[in-house]
Amino acid sequence: MADKDHVLIFDTTLRDGEQSPGATMTHSQKLEIAELLDDMGVDIIEAGFPIASEGDFNAVSEIAKRSKDAVICGLSRANFKDIDRCWEAVKHAAQPRIHTFIGTSPLHRAIPDLTKDEMAEKIHETVTHARNLCDNVQWSPMDATRTEWEYLTRVVEIAIKAGATTINIPDTVGYTAPRESADLIRRLIAEVPGAEDVIFATHCHNDLGMATANSLAAVEGGARQIECTINGLGERAGNTALEEVVMALRVRGDIMPYDTGVDATKLTHISRRVATVSGFAVQYNKAIVGKNAFAHESGIHQDGMLKNAETFEIMRPEDVGLTETNIVMGKHSGRAALRSKLHELGFDLADNQLNDVFVRFKALADRKKEVLADDLMALMRDQEAGDTVDRLKVKFLRVICGTEAPQSADLTLEIDGEDRQVTAQGDGPVDATFNAVKELFPHGARLQLYQVHAVTEGTDAQATVTVRLEEEGRITTGQSADTDTVVASAKAYVAALNRMLVKRERVEPHSDTKQVSYKDVT
Amino acid sequence: MADKDHVLIFDTTLRDGEQSPGATMTHSQKLEIAELLDDMGVDIIEAGFPIASEGDFNAVSEIAKRSKDAVICGLSRANFKDIDRCWEAVKHAAQPRIHTFIGTSPLHRAIPDLTKDEMAEKIHETVTHARNLCDNVQWSPMDATRTEWEYLTRVVEIAIKAGATTINIPDTVGYTAPRESADLIRRLIAEVPGAEDVIFATHCHNDLGMATANSLAAVEGGARQIECTINGLGERAGNTALEEVVMALRVRGDIMPYDTGVDATKLTHISRRVATVSGFAVQYNKAIVGKNAFAHESGIHQDGMLKNAETFEIMRPEDVGLTETNIVMGKHSGRAALRSKLHELGFDLADNQLNDVFVRFKALADRKKEVLADDLMALMRDQEAGDTVDRLKVKFLRVICGTEAPQSADLTLEIDGEDRQVTAQGDGPVDATFNAVKELFPHGARLQLYQVHAVTEGTDAQATVTVRLEEEGRITTGQSADTDTVVASAKAYVAALNRMLVKRERVEPHSDTKQVSYKDVT
Repeated sequence: MADKDHVLIFDTTLRDGEQSPGATMTHSQKLEIAELLDDMGVDIIEAGFPIASEGDFNAVSEIAKRSKDAVICGLSRANFKDIDRCWEAVKHAAQPRIHTFIGTSPLHRAIPDLTKDEMAEKIHETVTHARNLCDNVQWSPMDATRTEWEYLTRVVEIAIKAGATTINIPDTVGYTAPRESADLIRRLIAEVPGAEDVIFATHCHNDLGMATANSLAAVEGGARQIECTINGLGERAGNTALEEVVMALRVRGDIMPYDTGVDATKLTHISRRVATVSGFAVQYNKAIVGKNAFAHESGIHQDGMLKNAETFEIMRPEDVGLTETNIVMGKHSGRAALRSKLHELGFDLADNQLNDVFVRFKALADRKKEVLADDLMALMRDQEAGDTVDRLKVKFLRVICGTEAPQSADLTLEIDGEDRQVTAQGDGPVDATFNAVKELFPHGARLQLYQVHAVTEGTDAQATVTVRLEEEGRITTGQSADTDTVVASAKAYVAALNRMLVKRERVEPHSDTKQVSYKDVT
Repeated sequence: MADKDHVLIFDTTLRDGEQSPGATMTHSQKLEIAELLDDMGVDIIEAGFPIASEGDFNAVSEIAKRSKDAVICGLSRANFKDIDRCWEAVKHAAQPRIHTFIGTSPLHRAIPDLTKDEMAEKIHETVTHARNLCDNVQWSPMDATRTEWEYLTRVVEIAIKAGATTINIPDTVGYTAPRESADLIRRLIAEVPGAEDVIFATHCHNDLGMATANSLAAVEGGARQIECTINGLGERAGNTALEEVVMALRVRGDIMPYDTGVDATKLTHISRRVATVSGFAVQYNKAIVGKNAFAHESGIHQDGMLKNAETFEIMRPEDVGLTETNIVMGKHSGRAALRSKLHELGFDLADNQLNDVFVRFKALADRKKEVLADDLMALMRDQEAGDTVDRLKVKFLRVICGTEAPQSADLTLEIDGEDRQVTAQGDGPVDATFNAVKELFPHGARLQLYQVHAVTEGTDAQATVTVRLEEEGRITTGQSADTDTVVASAKAYVAALNRMLVKRERVEPHSDTKQVSYKDVT
C-alpha cells in the first residue's frame, strides 16, 4: 500500500496507447519502451493484452522477464481463459499484476446481454480466479462514469471482497469534468465497505481536453494511482499524458502535496522515442514535451526571461531533460564529442558500436551542415534496425523525378548476398521506387501505411519514413531516415520486408494479428 | 451585457496564436481566418497588436473594415501611444474593442520598476484614455494568478471605475488548477465593488495541460468570456483550445448550462486552415480536431459502435463538421461531383473558378489514384496562391537523387515571361533545387523555415511544403502541395520569392517586422 502522499504512476502506453489506430509497435520497440519506463521510475507498466494475439502475449512475457523495479501488468476480459493467459505472460515478472475489466454501464451491460445480478456474479468469479493466481489484482468497471451509482458501489464492493487490490475507475469516453472526477472517487471511498484496504485508480480519456485535470482531481478525491501514457497516446483523443500529470504534481506541490517516483529528466527522451516508434508526432504546442513548450518568442517574454527566468517559466527545460537543444555537431566533430552527445541523448555505447555509428555520423555530416540531436536519434534508430541480419539490402538508388511523369527509379538490391538491378516507373518517385523493389523481389505483402516525418528543419533536413506491411495477417514495420526522402522510403520499405521474411519462418505464423474479435478497452 | 447563460467566445488565434515561434501568418491568411471566425459565430476576434508592426496594424485595420457580426479587438500596452494606435486600427469595425494590459504580479512590476501606487495610477490613466476613445474596453492584469490578492482587487476596481467593460484574468504562465481558477473569479466578483457591471474573462495557457478545465472552471466561478485559439495555438504549450471549450460546454450542458454562439460544424474546417497557414500540424490524438479524435480501432469499440453509437461516442463526427471522410474522388469524377465536394469543404466557386480547379484536379487524379478531401484542400490553397500575378513560375524540373551524392536539379523558370534554364547541384534534392532557383534569379533572401507535411497517406501521398524567406526585415511565406516533394519544394520557394518581389515595391518596406522590442503577452 502506498503512503498517503505517494501517487502511483501506471503507464499504459504499451496497451491503451498501442491500441491507437496506426500506432502499432514492433516487439523490440515494446521492449525498449518498457525498459525506458522501468528506468524512469514508473510504478506499474501495463505491457499489453496477452489474449489478443501471440505478439501481445510474447511482448508481455518478455517485458515481465526483463522487468526491474516496475510491476508488470497485463489486461484481460472477465473470463477465465483471458485471465489464465494473462497470468501465463505476467508471472515471469518479479512483481506481476493481473488487470481484469468489464463494462458496467447500462450501454455496456446490454452488449453481452447480462442482468445486473448475472454481471455481479461474473465479477465475483473472475476476480476470485485472478486473485487465486496472483496477489496483485486490478479490477476496472469500464465506463464507470456512466454507470448507475447504486450498481457501481455494489460491484466495486464485490470486486474488493473477491480480492482486488486496486480498483480502477475509467472515464472510458472522456466525458467527465474535474469536480465530478474528484467527487466520484471521494464518494466511492466513503461509501464502499472495504475501500480503505485498496488503492483507487483513475483512468481518463481526453475527448474534451480535460484528462489531466480529471486525473489530478481524482487524486484530490483520494485516488492514489494515475493511469496514463507517454504523449497522451491512445484511442481517439488519447489518454491522460504521463508527462503532464507528473510535472503538474511537481510544479504545484503547494496545492497538491503528492509525490511520484518518476524521474522527470527522462521525459523528453522517452517522449521522442514513443513519438518515433508509434509514428504519432507530438504537436509543437503540446504541454511539457512539445517542441515549443519551452520556446519564448515575443520580446517582452525574452526581456523578462533575461531579467528573471521565473517571470515566464514555471518549469526549467532541464527539469524535463531538455538539455541538448543548442549543441550542434558537424563534420569536424570527433569521436569523443559524439560519444558525449549520445550519452546526453540516453545512448551509452560499447567501443565497437561507437565505431559503427561514427562512420555513419561522418557520412551524414558530409551531406548535412549541422547534425542535430534529432538527426542523431534517427541515426541510432537505423543503427538498431541494422543489428539484425537482413536478406535484402539497398545498395544503390537513383531516382529521376520532377514535373514530367512518369518518375523512374534505378535500384540495385543485394538479395541473399547477390546484387540485382532493375529500372521501374511509377506515379511519383516513391511509387517508382517501391515498384522497383517489387520487381526485384516479388512478394504478396500489402502496403498498409506510408508516412513521412521531418526530423529536423532546413533544406538538408532528414526525413524519417515509416512503412507498414501486411501479409496473411502478419504485420511488420520498417523505418529509416535520410536527407533524401526517396532513399529513406526505399530503406524503410526494405526494412519492413526483411522483418516479414523473418516472420514467415516463425512457428506462429500470425504473431502480430489480434486473435480476438474485440480487443479491449477502458 | 451577455445573458447569464451565454459565454462569449473571444478568439486570439491572430494575436496570441500568431505569436508562437514559427507561426507567423501572412496578411491575406489573417483576413481569411478572421472571416472564418466571424462566420463561425465567434463573439470577439482579437485581430492583432497594432503597435507591434505596420503589418499588424494593417491586418487589424482591414479585419475591422471587413467585420460582420464579431467585435474586433486590438491589443495595446499601458501607454497612450499604444492605445491610440490600437484605436486607429479597430475604429473601422462596426463593434470595436480596445484591449489594454499590464503585468501586475511582483515579478512583472519589477521589470518597469514601478511601485504599487505608480502602477495603479498608470492603470487609471490608460483605461480612462482608452474609454474616452472607445465604449468597449477590455483590461487585463497580466500574470493575475501570481498577483497578491489585495493588489489584484485594488487594480481591478480601478480599471472598472476608469471604464473597463471587460476584465480579463490571465493565467499567463499556465500555472493554475481548476479549483483555483473558479475560486479566483468567484472571489473577484464577490469582493470587487462594481464587478456586477462588467464581464469577467478567463485567459488560460496550457503549460500543465489544464487550460480547458481551467477555462470551464472560471465560467463556473462566474466568468462569461473565454479567451482561446483554434487548435490551442499559442506560445509555449499554447492557449485554451476553442474547439475543446465549445464542445465541452455543448456535450456537458447537463452540468455546465452555458451556451456559446459558435457553429461547431465549422470547427474541423477552420482547424485545418489554421494548421495549414500557421504550419503547426495538429497531433493525431488531439481532442475534437485530431485525425484520430473520432477513430475507433479495437474490435470491442467497433462492436459497440455498431450496436449503439452512444456506447463510445459522446459526440458525432458531423457535430464538428467531419462529414467528408469517406468520400473519395478519382479520375472519373466529374465537374458536378467536384463542385459538391468542394462545397462540403467550405468552398463555393464561380463557374470560371471551378473550371480552373477542375483542370488541376484532373491533372492530380491522373497521378494519384484517390483524391482525398485533404488533397482538394491543398489544391484550393495552391489555387488561391495562384490568383496573384507572379513574376517567377516553375516551368520544368527534373531532379536526380538517390544514394550517390551530389544530387542535381535541372530547372526551367519563367522569369517575367522569359524561360531560363540551369542545372545545379546540392546536398540532397531540395538543396540542389533551391540552388538552381538562386542561380537563375539571384537574390538576398535568407531561408528562415523549410517544412514538409504529408497531406494524405500512401506512396502517392501529396506533401505540402512551407518555405519562409526573410530579406531586410521583410518576411514572406510560400506553400505548395504535390505528390513529388521536390516539385512542391520548388513551387513553395518560388511562391515565397514572388511575394517578396511584391513587398519590395510597397511603400512600407518592412511591413511584417515587429517594430517594438517587446511584443505583447498575456
